[in-house]
Amino acid sequence: MGKEVTVLRPSDNGDRYELTSPTAMPKAGGFLWNQRMMIQITCRGYATAQFMQPEPAKYAHAPNIEAQTFMQPEQNYYAHHPGRFVYIKDLETGQLFSAPYEPVRAKPESFVFSAGKSDVAWVVENNGIRVEMIVGLPTHDVAELWTVKVTNISGRPRRLSVTPYFPVGYMSWMNQSAEWDSDLVGVIASSVTPYQKAEQYFKNKYLKDKTYFLCEMPPDSWEASQQAFEGEGGLHNPSALQEPQLSGSDACYETPTAAVQYHIALEAGDEREYRFMFGPAYDEAEIRTMRSRYLSKEAFARTADEYAAYMDRGRGCLRIETPDKELDNFVNNWLPRQVYYHGDVNRLTTDPQTRNYLQDNMGMNYIKPEVSRKAFITALSQQEANGAMPDGILLAEGAELKYINQIPHTDHCVWLPVTLDVYLAETGDYGLLKERVQTKNGDNFTVFERFSRAMDFLLKLRDERGLSYIAQGDWCDPMNMVGYKGKGVSGWLTLATAYALNLWADVCDHEGASDLAKHYRAGAEDCNRAANEHLWDGDWFARGITDDNVVFGIKKDPHGRIWLNPQSFAILGGAASQQQIDRIIPQIDSQLTTPYGVVMFTPAFTKMREDIGRVTQKAPGSAENGAVYNHAAAFYVYSLYTLGGRQADRAYTHLRQLLPGPSEDDYFQRGQLPVYIPNYYRGAWREFPRTAGRSSQLFNTGTVSWAYRCVIEGLCGLRGDKDGLVVRPQLPSAWEAIKVTREFRGATFQLDIRRGDVKDVTVSVGGQVLPEPRVTGIKAGETYQLSVLVPR
Amino acid sequence: MGKEVTVLRPSDNGDRYELTSPTAMPKAGGFLWNQRMMIQITCRGYATAQFMQPEPAKYAHAPNIEAQTFMQPEQNYYAHHPGRFVYIKDLETGQLFSAPYEPVRAKPESFVFSAGKSDVAWVVENNGIRVEMIVGLPTHDVAELWTVKVTNISGRPRRLSVTPYFPVGYMSWMNQSAEWDSDLVGVIASSVTPYQKAEQYFKNKYLKDKTYFLCEMPPDSWEASQQAFEGEGGLHNPSALQEPQLSGSDACYETPTAAVQYHIALEAGDEREYRFMFGPAYDEAEIRTMRSRYLSKEAFARTADEYAAYMDRGRGCLRIETPDKELDNFVNNWLPRQVYYHGDVNRLTTDPQTRNYLQDNMGMNYIKPEVSRKAFITALSQQEANGAMPDGILLAEGAELKYINQIPHTDHCVWLPVTLDVYLAETGDYGLLKERVQTKNGDNFTVFERFSRAMDFLLKLRDERGLSYIAQGDWCDPMNMVGYKGKGVSGWLTLATAYALNLWADVCDHEGASDLAKHYRAGAEDCNRAANEHLWDGDWFARGITDDNVVFGIKKDPHGRIWLNPQSFAILGGAASQQQIDRIIPQIDSQLTTPYGVVMFTPAFTKMREDIGRVTQKAPGSAENGAVYNHAAAFYVYSLYTLGGRQADRAYTHLRQLLPGPSEDDYFQRGQLPVYIPNYYRGAWREFPRTAGRSSQLFNTGTVSWAYRCVIEGLCGLRGDKDGLVVRPQLPSAWEAIKVTREFRGATFQLDIRRGDVKDVTVSVGGQVLPEPRVTGIKAGETYQLSVLVPR
Repeated sequence: MGKEVTVLRPSDNGDRYELTSPTAMPKAGGFLWNQRMMIQITCRGYATAQFMQPEPAKYAHAPNIEAQTFMQPEQNYYAHHPGRFVYIKDLETGQLFSAPYEPVRAKPESFVFSAGKSDVAWVVENNGIRVEMIVGLPTHDVAELWTVKVTNISGRPRRLSVTPYFPVGYMSWMNQSAEWDSDLVGVIASSVTPYQKAEQYFKNKYLKDKTYFLCEMPPDSWEASQQAFEGEGGLHNPSALQEPQLSGSDACYETPTAAVQYHIALEAGDEREYRFMFGPAYDEAEIRTMRSRYLSKEAFARTADEYAAYMDRGRGCLRIETPDKELDNFVNNWLPRQVYYHGDVNRLTTDPQTRNYLQDNMGMNYIKPEVSRKAFITALSQQEANGAMPDGILLAEGAELKYINQIPHTDHCVWLPVTLDVYLAETGDYGLLKERVQTKNGDNFTVFERFSRAMDFLLKLRDERGLSYIAQGDWCDPMNMVGYKGKGVSGWLTLATAYALNLWADVCDHEGASDLAKHYRAGAEDCNRAANEHLWDGDWFARGITDDNVVFGIKKDPHGRIWLNPQSFAILGGAASQQQIDRIIPQIDSQLTTPYGVVMFTPAFTKMREDIGRVTQKAPGSAENGAVYNHAAAFYVYSLYTLGGRQADRAYTHLRQLLPGPSEDDYFQRGQLPVYIPNYYRGAWREFPRTAGRSSQLFNTGTVSWAYRCVIEGLCGLRGDKDGLVVRPQLPSAWEAIKVTREFRGATFQLDIRRGDVKDVTVSVGGQVLPEPRVTGIKAGETYQLSVLVPR
Repeated sequence: MGKEVTVLRPSDNGDRYELTSPTAMPKAGGFLWNQRMMIQITCRGYATAQFMQPEPAKYAHAPNIEAQTFMQPEQNYYAHHPGRFVYIKDLETGQLFSAPYEPVRAKPESFVFSAGKSDVAWVVENNGIRVEMIVGLPTHDVAELWTVKVTNISGRPRRLSVTPYFPVGYMSWMNQSAEWDSDLVGVIASSVTPYQKAEQYFKNKYLKDKTYFLCEMPPDSWEASQQAFEGEGGLHNPSALQEPQLSGSDACYETPTAAVQYHIALEAGDEREYRFMFGPAYDEAEIRTMRSRYLSKEAFARTADEYAAYMDRGRGCLRIETPDKELDNFVNNWLPRQVYYHGDVNRLTTDPQTRNYLQDNMGMNYIKPEVSRKAFITALSQQEANGAMPDGILLAEGAELKYINQIPHTDHCVWLPVTLDVYLAETGDYGLLKERVQTKNGDNFTVFERFSRAMDFLLKLRDERGLSYIAQGDWCDPMNMVGYKGKGVSGWLTLATAYALNLWADVCDHEGASDLAKHYRAGAEDCNRAANEHLWDGDWFARGITDDNVVFGIKKDPHGRIWLNPQSFAILGGAASQQQIDRIIPQIDSQLTTPYGVVMFTPAFTKMREDIGRVTQKAPGSAENGAVYNHAAAFYVYSLYTLGGRQADRAYTHLRQLLPGPSEDDYFQRGQLPVYIPNYYRGAWREFPRTAGRSSQLFNTGTVSWAYRCVIEGLCGLRGDKDGLVVRPQLPSAWEAIKVTREFRGATFQLDIRRGDVKDVTVSVGGQVLPEPRVTGIKAGETYQLSVLVPR
């Protein structure tokens, strides 16, 4: 307790109490209130203050939002953020450091952090000791597999304590505890997920409310209580490490942690290797099973092999060799991995937004088209009776629409033909259209019929001018107040509807339904007519018209003057004539293009515009408010690639901006490794140059399917049609040649693409020039060597 | 940026990226996933991992729950917890400490933390410098008023930097920023409260989303960015304090903070005094107003006087001088303060639970009975058409029933007569009963009629055996699965209903409604008959009968064998005969009594019992699960005091246990100062002796009204009736004499109470012995000196 003489004393008249040591009762404090607030403040200076407005609110906050929420951008880290750490203490000198770096923050002599496709690893050298840490995952189970290797590189014998510290953190206000289990050889933390409604109990009953930390090799001592571990020393110098060994405290409705300690003596050059597991479980039986399944050198090796094979199944359909090595690396390794992540686990949600679900599966066509096929069926089985698609697709029993999916958006049907386009191009599987799909409301239609119903719904969802209603948002979620009164329309959605209808009309033609094709093409034309009549602002298309009939996204707007998406979809859907395109693109160049990519609109809003909505309240330059929102930037790149090669340079430039680098300055400003495309980089670069370019650090984004599509269909120009593979590369003008390997319908195409004195793309196979740049009669299992010449 | 040569490099085959400095891109990391989980892990070791079950969940957590929730017990503090700190650095030696103690945690040479009724203050001496910090509040506005005084006690000239650091923290994922305002002389942090639904915008529109930190005296430098302030040094040694001055960074969608720095030179004995304000505001105009209203030496002094006067209005109606000085101090100063807090601001909620609202106002009868009177009207104006009381009373426009108030509990009507009993005793104001109260559903009844309707509702809310249904809980919120199927009954509620009906029957008699009185007395008898028939277990009353007709809280139960509340209310409501009481009390003594108070039940549950509910899942010994739940302990004490003096010793013992001390060991184990009664102390003292007794640190509790009532009505025996004040002290047997000053109906009673050779209490006024121990004909403004003799 740290008690001292007269630690506590009342004042003479009893109106105050005095404490003369901050450590005797660390939480002891006083509280004050007035008519509208209260503050509880401890002897150490920590404070909790709330005021009424009229609900309780705070003006000083914890460093980040915990509790269940969606993933937040630009996450903040702080001293007690969850992490995985190993303290190394020299038992002779007392010198302490931690690997990788936190919480001690001792400057390492050498540091390598290594983000791999199948593992994440570090090699940290400090004070003559090398610490290697590797974490990998099994393919199907939930667990982290950690290897920690400690090597004495100091050239002399050393005595060390090695203390892995895996904080478990505040699990639950209802019930939390942790203790050492000598049978399982680890710390087992237990909790009860909090709830108040009785029905919630039955939902929570089988939750994995335990967290385990298991050691392959029994440690010399251990700690299960965060407070006991940290003590007065703080995480940068924990009290427990100032003692000869860890105290073996349990945590009894205290904050659980897992720390274990090994005392070792290493000769020069000696090493020790440890293995640990960390993860959730339902009960001890499950922990026991996990231990026996994974926690050994052999199992780690086998699991790593299995995991590498699992990753390899997501390697994608393209390998490129271009003059841009960073692009090659990203496209050959990381982009398909990120696409695979989206298609494989649907962002780890049970109710992905319908537009995300369809687009994530659009990318999956290039990896596992059978998964994409199934996704269409799953999505359509939740189509509403009026042809509308719901805001989210439920993927698990008992799942519910959450967060943003409880708010009505009007664009979901658009994504059906847009993503089907890729499925058909990649597989030629028109048979999908004949599948019957029954919904819970009992109706039973073919996929073809369901698409038509969705298109009819889009056609109906328009006002008397022919413009598409926006309700509480379209693709742009937080544009929630343009049409919440029921009248406002979306310029983008009107143009995207035209694009969808045109794509669907082509499919109708293919299926011999030419009347329908005509019907949908007429619909598209009507959308485009309406857009041109009401939204063309002279040099670009407006973003929409509010409930109060105010057109916005136009020249006279001081903020949100020009928006990217309407321009991209005017190109894709045919609303923009060639003359209009020639006016639009220079405006995008001069207004929306930044060193970090193309921003979604400009200038960023600096205060709420009540007839547009939440998007205008977001932090200027971040997320949607004037950011480089990569999903929109990728739409634009794709639209440039549909222009027949004339925009190949511009398309390449903006494609390239989706990932950071290649200059180190660019990496540092963006603040992330090039192992994924984030959902945004901060924009508003003129207004906030210091922070512009920063990555959101969020790897969930619809961008990646489009980026991969742009590389495959656009840059490499390798798109399928019903019977073959069309070859129309769009190399940037500075490139002389590239090499491409493309897997397509079971065959492998090896292309040597280079500039030639040709008027149009020329493809030769075995010295024979094909009549058109298109390979047909493709046989699965075959490898085709193609020599391709593209015009200079 | 801390860039170095070759900080970033891809591996040869591109399947990993390496970073060779943890500081160049602090958030840079990798991510791994498998079919059921993902982990994002930074180069520094911080990790965010989620898995699906099926909704996303975590197994490693942040240290506490942030985001809007109710107040949590046993709150955890951690390095980045909000606080109010002042760093003091010696500019010659570089020595650094912080007052009060966090975040540097440098051991002070002298430390006094002082929790007062009107302020909280520290005097900290370290390195020859004395830092005095005081915080107070205005009476009506939301703001903290801070005085910081720095004195050189080292006896030699010193050069120092003084750096108040008031972290603002993570305000919002939508929008947050902070900057220096040289006009307002402070840091202004701005944010937008996050939301997704459009209708929420209109609710949020006028929220005070700014936090200000204002300085009376302009500082030499300042910092508004948490990251810039803390840097790589960490909070215990911030990077910003290693520089000659603060860098003046703004926070642009980064974590806001407020730090300002003064460079001073102090001769021996010199001092500097600073004043600061910290709080929320809607806009800059409001901040400007607050500054001019409060931020000066004169305004601080005036505000402190006003606040002291405000506190003095809550000083209560009792002053005691007894052999127990700690009790005197608590009863004369802190207990009425806590009662006042509850009655004055209703726990700072907009929807207090009905039982809390009524009981909190029960205590207010001893301070401001006119407030309690109004509370009855407010509560009854929300009575339902069938006579039921709602689960919470809405106090603000737009308020909604939240959290636990969305779950149906059956006991709310009970508290009407229970709390009216005190109102009538204290005021004699039977006129309240004639007030008419209209509800929103349009019905219009007098208070008397509404009480009768509530009693009729309680009578109806019983099963065929005459036992009261429990639905999803009674007074014990988390006993939510005893009766959720509609059949389970509450033993406690049955007994409490009898108590309420008897109290109400007395009022009916007083009002001349003797038929009604008979009706309710018969109802009470029927409740007691049913309880005795179905719930008497030989030595105590059972707690209830589940939906499946299982009686619980009985001898054969391994957990939850005996519960305190049914016994207390069997005494209060008349179900227990004298013989039964003589069996019950020894059982409470032997089973429920602990060194830290009387636990609510025993033994604590160690796993879920599905026919009882959530209470059985709470951490054993904490909150309701086998804890010393002080509200229940206070009911018991009160019931002992109703036994006519025979239990005065036992009542005093348990009353005394409601507050920690007087031994220091007891303070340290409980971990709080005796400035309030917490809602629980941990129980389960046999199973978990290490943690038993710990305070919840929550000062919101229904306990305090009852504790004050026990002292006034019980220990001092000073209870009003219609026309006078009855005097029946119940001194513990070891006490020879006490002195009491009691304010009652505008008069002041000064009592000298001592043991005497009397058979019954004898009261003398001016040497005249009164015919009975009761003073009548009381005149407001008068002071009465009473000599009271009580039997030995």
